[in-house]
Amino acid sequence: MAKPRAPKKTNKRPAAKKSLGHGTKLKVGLVGFGTVGSSVAKIICQDADGPLQLTHIFNRNIERKKIDGLPTHIRWTSKIHEVLSSDVDVVVELIGGIDPSGRWVRQALRSGKSVVTANKLLVSESGPELVDLARKMGKRFEFGASVAGGIPAVIGIQEGLAGDRLHRIAGILNGTCNFILTEMEAHERSFETALKEAQARGYAEADPSSDVDGIDARAKLVILTQAGLRLRVRSEQIPCRSISLIAAVDFMYARELKCAIRQISVAQKNTSQGVRLAAAVQPALVPEDSLVAHAHGSENLVMATGEFAGRMVFSGYGAGGDPTAVAVISDLYTIARTAGAPPEALPGAAEVPDSVSGDFTVPHYLRFTVRDRPGIVASLATILAKYGISIDALLQKPGFPHSALSFVMTLEACDSAVLNRALEEIARLDFHVERPLCLPIFVD
Amino acid sequence: MAKPRAPKKTNKRPAAKKSLGHGTKLKVGLVGFGTVGSSVAKIICQDADGPLQLTHIFNRNIERKKIDGLPTHIRWTSKIHEVLSSDVDVVVELIGGIDPSGRWVRQALRSGKSVVTANKLLVSESGPELVDLARKMGKRFEFGASVAGGIPAVIGIQEGLAGDRLHRIAGILNGTCNFILTEMEAHERSFETALKEAQARGYAEADPSSDVDGIDARAKLVILTQAGLRLRVRSEQIPCRSISLIAAVDFMYARELKCAIRQISVAQKNTSQGVRLAAAVQPALVPEDSLVAHAHGSENLVMATGEFAGRMVFSGYGAGGDPTAVAVISDLYTIARTAGAPPEALPGAAEVPDSVSGDFTVPHYLRFTVRDRPGIVASLATILAKYGISIDALLQKPGFPHSALSFVMTLEACDSAVLNRALEEIARLDFHVERPLCLPIFVD
Repeated sequence: MAKPRAPKKTNKRPAAKKSLGHGTKLKVGLVGFGTVGSSVAKIICQDADGPLQLTHIFNRNIERKKIDGLPTHIRWTSKIHEVLSSDVDVVVELIGGIDPSGRWVRQALRSGKSVVTANKLLVSESGPELVDLARKMGKRFEFGASVAGGIPAVIGIQEGLAGDRLHRIAGILNGTCNFILTEMEAHERSFETALKEAQARGYAEADPSSDVDGIDARAKLVILTQAGLRLRVRSEQIPCRSISLIAAVDFMYARELKCAIRQISVAQKNTSQGVRLAAAVQPALVPEDSLVAHAHGSENLVMATGEFAGRMVFSGYGAGGDPTAVAVISDLYTIARTAGAPPEALPGAAEVPDSVSGDFTVPHYLRFTVRDRPGIVASLATILAKYGISIDALLQKPGFPHSALSFVMTLEACDSAVLNRALEEIARLDFHVERPLCLPIFVD
Repeated sequence: MAKPRAPKKTNKRPAAKKSLGHGTKLKVGLVGFGTVGSSVAKIICQDADGPLQLTHIFNRNIERKKIDGLPTHIRWTSKIHEVLSSDVDVVVELIGGIDPSGRWVRQALRSGKSVVTANKLLVSESGPELVDLARKMGKRFEFGASVAGGIPAVIGIQEGLAGDRLHRIAGILNGTCNFILTEMEAHERSFETALKEAQARGYAEADPSSDVDGIDARAKLVILTQAGLRLRVRSEQIPCRSISLIAAVDFMYARELKCAIRQISVAQKNTSQGVRLAAAVQPALVPEDSLVAHAHGSENLVMATGEFAGRMVFSGYGAGGDPTAVAVISDLYTIARTAGAPPEALPGAAEVPDSVSGDFTVPHYLRFTVRDRPGIVASLATILAKYGISIDALLQKPGFPHSALSFVMTLEACDSAVLNRALEEIARLDFHVERPLCLPIFVD
């Protein structure tokens, strides 16, 4: 559907004086034309009467990317400077990664353009700096699409809950991991089989490590920690553990415990002695009647807990072209409605915590796979007792061979750092067939 | 904790030039000092370094309301003009109802103040007009607290999902009803007993009709329909049915059907032939593994379904002093961060739908209580067949007396308007001990 040229297209007033009510549109330049980019282009161009006008599309090898059906006035280019030196009001950065996207975003901001991005790596590394740079230029830097795609988690937490004092952010921030784990759960599949299924359906990349090992979710957790807990933390300070450690047997035991297994990202602020942050991305047990266990397939879910409003939950489809495009377009609307003017900073900038650790005091699940012989439980219990850790329950399903018997212990709440020391000692015992698996149990 | 006087308190620059970064605070006048008002006052005054300064508190019989511990510079008054003619930047209206609150809100806006309100009746009746009036004055009218208290549903839907085209809003918008229904469900109680429990705990008023009959939820549904579906509808166009129709026996049968019973508010936009809105507030069956069934006690939940991002869910505590105060404070922060300047209107104002009805084409649950005799099911089935309605299942638990036997029929998806005509005919049959109960079954 061809869009008629917008009236006043030659109007050269600066963005700050534009009025949505008078037919002047926000000129948008797209940098990156993959799945999300083409969704953004489609949605903008479908709404010919809307406040947005797509004027430039940049991609490498643009000739291969060109599609029919978009308005003919759009400038398709493989030269980034054609976008950055153009009269677009907003650059939408959708190429991802740190370089060259970071350079281009800074260049766009410095030349007085607003920027919208879905780039979680860039925002987790440089978000506050880019917000400051935009504010100095009197422009906006918006990144709602960088976390949980279509779920308005960033605006919900940063603005909708601004009046609370949040102390905990937790959730399911990676749809690929959630697909793999719920697939393992529903069809009693191995991790490898579920991963192949995810790859076949296009939910996982050929190299799935960024998703599976927690790197992707961690970048989003950093962004939410900044937006919600108002703490500045670097990705590398937050420990990640891979979901590839999870075997079908763990789902069998989790079911006995009325639990599900999910990749959980948590950041928890404690201000009782200085400002301490506990944060980690890892597979964990969650009660099967909890909201997190309810997130199926590629769904995402963000929980924010505050001093006054209690626990708020945002959930929905966090990835994919269309949901992520909705977040991009919503940010573009915000820029259109404010003529690109940035909001004032809240007083008291985000602070750097005094300490960051991956340790939580919660119940734990331990799965051992051993060559069976008398005295195994006794030696485990002895070591745990030495560290002051109490066993809650012991589960052993029938049917395992003596040469590789898998059984499970649940522990009462204990500090995971102390438990890890106990586990180092336990790992040196001679009956293990594989390294014991330790998962936290998060009850909300 | 006494708050030191803010620096530059005598600064007379207009609000639009204030800068959060330079110690000038947003002066706030509270109109109404009940549960929410005192929470708002507490949160503002706890944050002495924050961007807000509470300067006036209005209430009738203010002497009885005065509490210790708030800064001494606050002006306590029973004369509304002392707030409206003061130099406050924002009036926070927390008295509820249409009059005098509507007059006072208009007066505040006309005198160049922004307004924040939690008043769902006023916003459902006059929200768009008040937003327009505020915009004309270059000020903001914010009402995030009017729906679902602490849950940032209004900002999430109106701004976070602005880039989508929403066609359905549904959810649990009244915590009192949800408390009563989950109480009936968990403890097999009658409606009357559960209502008394809710009143004893302060969750329900002495006259509970506004909650129980759906009037309260309907006002919130009108606001969300405006914000999300961009349709203007009047409360009285939306049919409501009371949850007092639900008996303990309905929970017994619902459980057989793997369902829960909740007060569900739904608004659904259909644009295939003109713009039609189907909207209603009523008790309904929902699958027990659905997210709505998961909302327990006084929790609220809002689902928004869009063309691009699919279904998004927001949930949390929707009522109570502190959660509602969080929504008020978040709106005050937005005003502080934008120096009170309103965003531009989105192009294409909300439209008036061509038709509004309470009819949905969904499966239904029918519960009959009859004097048992042969041929009852045959006569019911004959009438339903005449209207083209198919029976899905028939359930009859043992143990009822012949003089008052309760049994249940579930129907395949049918239009509720057609079903209502069939039910009128059915109600004239002579075997009923009480009027048949008809509930829709909403599967998402």
